Formats: sequence, C-alpha cells, structure tokens
Amino acid sequence: MHEEQRQRASELLHARQIDAALFASPASITWLTGFTPPVQTGPHPFAGAPPLVWWDGDRFTLIVVDGLAAAAKGAAATDGGVLSYLGYTIDAPIDGARHLRTLLQSLWQETSRTGRSQRVGVESWALPAAVGGVLAAQRGRDWVTIDGWLTPLRMVKSNEELAKLRANFRLTDIAHAAARRATVAGAREIDVWLAAKTAVEAAAGQRVPMGNDCVVGYRQENIGGWPGDLALRPGDSLIVDLSTILYGYWSDSCATYFAGGASARQQAIHTVVSQALALGAGLLRPGAVTGDIDRRVRQFIADAGYPVYPHHTGHGVGVNGHEAPRLVPYNQEVLAAGMVILLEPGIYFPGETGVRLEDAFLITEDGAVQLTAHDKALP
Amino acid sequence: MHEEQRQRASELLHARQIDAALFASPASITWLTGFTPPVQTGPHPFAGAPPLVWWDGDRFTLIVVDGLAAAAKGAAATDGGVLSYLGYTIDAPIDGARHLRTLLQSLWQETSRTGRSQRVGVESWALPAAVGGVLAAQRGRDWVTIDGWLTPLRMVKSNEELAKLRANFRLTDIAHAAARRATVAGAREIDVWLAAKTAVEAAAGQRVPMGNDCVVGYRQENIGGWPGDLALRPGDSLIVDLSTILYGYWSDSCATYFAGGASARQQAIHTVVSQALALGAGLLRPGAVTGDIDRRVRQFIADAGYPVYPHHTGHGVGVNGHEAPRLVPYNQEVLAAGMVILLEPGIYFPGETGVRLEDAFLITEDGAVQLTAHDKALP
Repeated sequence: MHEEQRQRASELLHARQIDAALFASPASITWLTGFTPPVQTGPHPFAGAPPLVWWDGDRFTLIVVDGLAAAAKGAAATDGGVLSYLGYTIDAPIDGARHLRTLLQSLWQETSRTGRSQRVGVESWALPAAVGGVLAAQRGRDWVTIDGWLTPLRMVKSNEELAKLRANFRLTDIAHAAARRATVAGAREIDVWLAAKTAVEAAAGQRVPMGNDCVVGYRQENIGGWPGDLALRPGDSLIVDLSTILYGYWSDSCATYFAGGASARQQAIHTVVSQALALGAGLLRPGAVTGDIDRRVRQFIADAGYPVYPHHTGHGVGVNGHEAPRLVPYNQEVLAAGMVILLEPGIYFPGETGVRLEDAFLITEDGAVQLTAHDKALP
Repeated sequence: MHEEQRQRASELLHARQIDAALFASPASITWLTGFTPPVQTGPHPFAGAPPLVWWDGDRFTLIVVDGLAAAAKGAAATDGGVLSYLGYTIDAPIDGARHLRTLLQSLWQETSRTGRSQRVGVESWALPAAVGGVLAAQRGRDWVTIDGWLTPLRMVKSNEELAKLRANFRLTDIAHAAARRATVAGAREIDVWLAAKTAVEAAAGQRVPMGNDCVVGYRQENIGGWPGDLALRPGDSLIVDLSTILYGYWSDSCATYFAGGASARQQAIHTVVSQALALGAGLLRPGAVTGDIDRRVRQFIADAGYPVYPHHTGHGVGVNGHEAPRLVPYNQEVLAAGMVILLEPGIYFPGETGVRLEDAFLITEDGAVQLTAHDKALP
C-alpha cells in the first residue's frame, strides 16, 4: 500500500543528496503511508506531536502515540513498520512529548551507526520546534528544510489513490442528493448541511470529516463559509460546496440549489456558469497549460457580462482539498495523465445571489473523464 | 473577554522573569483569547502555523492567517489586537509560512526596541520548528520553554468560562436525549451517533465538533471508540460518551443505553456504577485530594466484586476535554472552588457488555453542583 509514493519520495531524496528525513505534515504522512489520524475534534490529546514519518535512507517508519497505534497498524503498510510511544496513562502525569523525544533519540542513534545520515531533511513548518531541537542537538549533521518537496510528486495519482478519491466522490454525490432534497423555503443552512452530512456518514458507516461551504445568496459574504442558522426564503440561492475525507483523501464538488425554484435571472446566471464549466472541461487534456485554461474560463464569464469570480478556476485534489496544479492566472504548470482536476467557476452578487458549479475530472491520455455525477441542472 | 485569563498568565510570566512569550498550543490560544479556529477538517489549509499569541511583556496579540481574521476579530478581544498574514491568493503561489515569518520578524524588531525581551518564553511542542528557527536567529535572547505553564492556571474557571461550559453541557444533554431515543435493536452505532450529532448542530444552529465514544458491548474493545456500522441486537449495551466543543470549550458526559432494555445482570452492573458515581460526587469539595477520591471509587467497584476500570476516575475539563486536575491514583492535587470535575466510573466485560456513567460537577465552597442533567436511570 502506497509503495509507489514511497518509491517516488525515495528517488527524489536520493537525487537531492538527502541521507535521512523526518516528515511531519499531515499531507506527507497520509501520502507516504495511507494512514490518517482522526481530526474532527482537533489534535490527539495525548500525543507529543502529530504522526511523523522517519526515513532512514532506506525504510519509512511511521511514529504515532500509542492511542493511534492500532489504527495506524491497520491502515499503514510502511516498510519500516509503526513505532509508538506512551500517551495516556493513569500511573504518571501524561507526557507524550517526553516519550516521543526518547523514541526519536533512540531512532537517531541507530541511524548514526549506519553512517549514512550527514544531510537530514526536515519538514520544518509542521514539525514541533521541540523535536527540531532534539535533532539539532545531535552533532555532525546538516539540517535541510524539505517543506513542500513532496507537493509536485503528489500531482499524478496512483490507481490506489484514484480508488480512494472515487470512493469520496461517490460520498459527495450522496451528500448532494440529500442537500438538494433538503433545500426548501424555511430550512436553514445548517439543516441542509445536516441532511448532507447524515447521508454521508450513514452510507459510509463511520464518521467522515466534511467541508466546505453552505451559504445562502443573501449573505454579504456569499462565496463561501460554514452553515449557520440563516433560513432560506422562497427564491433564495444556496451554494453547497462539499468535500468528504475518507481514507485521508478529499473529494470536492459544488452545486447551487434554489428554494422553490430559480428566478429568470438566477436561471440565466446558472446557465452561464454551466457553460463556463463545460468550456473548462473541454480544455482538460495532457499538455494543457493551467494558466491558459484559467484565462479562457474567466474571459467567458466576462464576455457574458458578469463579474469574474475572485478565486481560482480550479485545482488538484488528493490528501489536501486544494493541491497542485492550481488553475490560476500566473501558473504555467502543464496537465498530465493521472491528475485529478476540479473546475469551479462562479458568479456572485454579494448580499443577493450567487452560483458556483464544480466538477472533478481525471486527466487521461485521451482528454478528461468526469468523476462526479450529481445533477447540476436547475430544479 | 478572557481578561482574567490574560491577567493570570501575565502575573505568572512576570513572576518567572519572562520578558516576552510566544504561545502556540490550541489550548493556550483559546484560553488566552476566547478564539478557537475550526478543526473539523484538520489544520487551516493556507496557514503557515496554527493561531499564535505573542505577549510582548504587556499586551497579548493574536496572530492568524487572513482567512481566519474576521472570525478572530469577532471572537477574540485581545488587548494587542489581531494581526493577520496573507494565506490564499490567486496572484502568486500560496505561501502562508513565508508571510507569517515576515510578520514575526517585524513584530520581533518592534519588541527588541523596547529592550524588555531578554528572556523569551516559547511553547516549543506546539510551535513549528521553522518559527522556532526564526526566533533563534535573533541574537541576544534566551529561549525558555514554557510548555504546560498555563495548565495549572486553567483549573479554576472564570464566570465567563463557566457560561461557555454550561452552554456545552446543555448541548450534551440534548445529544443524550436523542441518542437514548435512537438506541433500538437494528440501529447501528453510527445511527445513534448521527441522531445525537444532528440534534446538537440543529439546536446550536451551527457546526459543533463532537467526541468521544459510541461502542456496543459486544466489541472486544468496548471501553471507547468511534461509532462504526456495528448493529445493535436486542439486549446489547451501548456506551455513549459525548463531548461538544462550542466556543472552544468541551463538555463531557457518558450514559449507557440498552437496546430493548437491560438484562438483570446489566441492571445490576448499572446500579453499581451509579452508586460509584454517587459516592464520588459526595466526596467532591474544596480541599479534597484527587488521589483519595480515585482510590475510594475504585475500591467501591472492587468491593462489589467487579473488575476495576483501567482509566481515570475523573478529570477536569475546559479548553481541552481532559484537563488538570486528574482523578488518578498518584495525584495529590487538591480540589478548589471554581473547578469543573467529571466523574466517570465504569465496569467492562470485553466482548460482552459494559457500563460507564459520567456526570459533571462544579466545585463550590459548599460542595459540588451537578452540571449535567441527562437521565442516567435504566430505560
């Protein structure tokens, strides 16, 4: 599991003369090992740090607090195994940080004996400063920050990753079907959201983190935001932009619903956004330049006489909701087969109404295959 | 808002000759400022670090990525205000880390001019190593780790904190009423959980993170765990241990329900656990030693001929679900008025059945006031 990812990471690190590395960002951990810790109530209460991955130049080892060890062993198949340290105990004050430090020091001594660890890579923006201090106290090493190094490697998805993404896109479709039914005058944003969330977790048979937006058109900030207790009135638009995160992989898709049906103006806006989305989808193929697609879709909205959305035209997706390549004005990255790309044009009139539509596409040698199936047609 | 907390923190830091400090742990940020970022889908995707609080020896300043600035300004009333740095943009690669570093460097220069910053405290287990490096690169400073320093200060709650805690305990009671109704043969753990979660968020009119356990008795690990797709059979026990986290403060309470009613054996177990809880509650008063209460409640379970639970007898609660003081064997901390204490004895037969009951109590000069109201009686 996730061997392909670890292989790509090893090749990169060796090519850049890195002898050993400590990964700490949640995205790197999930991508390298397939393991993802629960996030819904915040960081693990007894852990010294988030899950870490130690690469000794050869094998990848996942390091977690003992409370996550069973889940990690079930989900992760790292070649170096799973190491854990004491978290919760009733026999002494809880001190995961101290136990993690001890574990890292012993791991470090082991690696020192092999003599291969002159240059050690560190994800310095995700690693706790205290752990950085433990490493820095070891003599005779060069510390190299490797933040973001894995990002470009993550763009092309493996078949295993595509299976995980597809499972999430199915959940998002289920969520949209429920949200669509729940969008009626009198319902609140939170009620529509709960209909979607309940449908997702009932179908998955487990808790599934879900983002992103559920905002009624009459909000002043009606592009995005979490659901509140604002009620839908007849004719109100509701932007429902949903990601589910099962197996650590994000889906993403957005639809716009109308309580009791759309007005002629809303219908016209919806049609233009649908056409913009279709235009963008037609441009997705290996070799296409992201910035060019971005410019074409923006221009289409402007030519139709509407204000151009202030956000990206689209983005990649994987262990983060927004990944490279970004479809934004400055970007010259080129699409390749195996990338999964979201397109999400929108038209917004703050305080009045707004429409955004978003679909996911897998780039293939022949063009693009749509991965989302929720119905974007007007009710 | 939260002035009392900042006052207590300032006094402690001055008393220990700290001239300036950088706080990074989520608990410290919420406790000092009242602000808590959304956690449900993990760390903020465009932030360089979690929210930070900078204390310049006088004022507390909250530092967040711009995407959280509006929420932070609404929720936090720090005397030094809220500073934000660029996160999401379509005009350049997203690099919150770099923008945060620039902000910290300029903050630092300002503090240097005052000449009061010889000894700088740092929460080193929550601060990113890269930020630690930025600070360490400044010359002429002593770096002092202050991890955990605020923990004892957090034990006694202010009236403002009690209001936030009470709001959460009300939500937990709503959750339990829904969970109780949903516990029927044929329902799955996740279905009971969703009934509770939906009731909470519908009542709050917003998303509310919720932990902790929803486990059927026939699980081998039946003390705790997240809900899955395991179905309840007639006569199965279900431990439902719930925390809601509104305003960054945790509630906590546990009940045990029985699909279709309890057997005589389950009823006997439930009675003993109820009595153990009542025994513990009667011992809660200012001056009581935590380890003594722990020992008395454990002994009661043992004397009744049942296996003694492997976890704590209870704990404090606040910006974390488990806070000091812990009711565990080794602990000699003493209860004081203004603490909020959870008691949660249980009896478990792995793979068969289990019962845990948990209530919250406010320690007052006269004893303890129960804060939770869900009905613990057998159905």
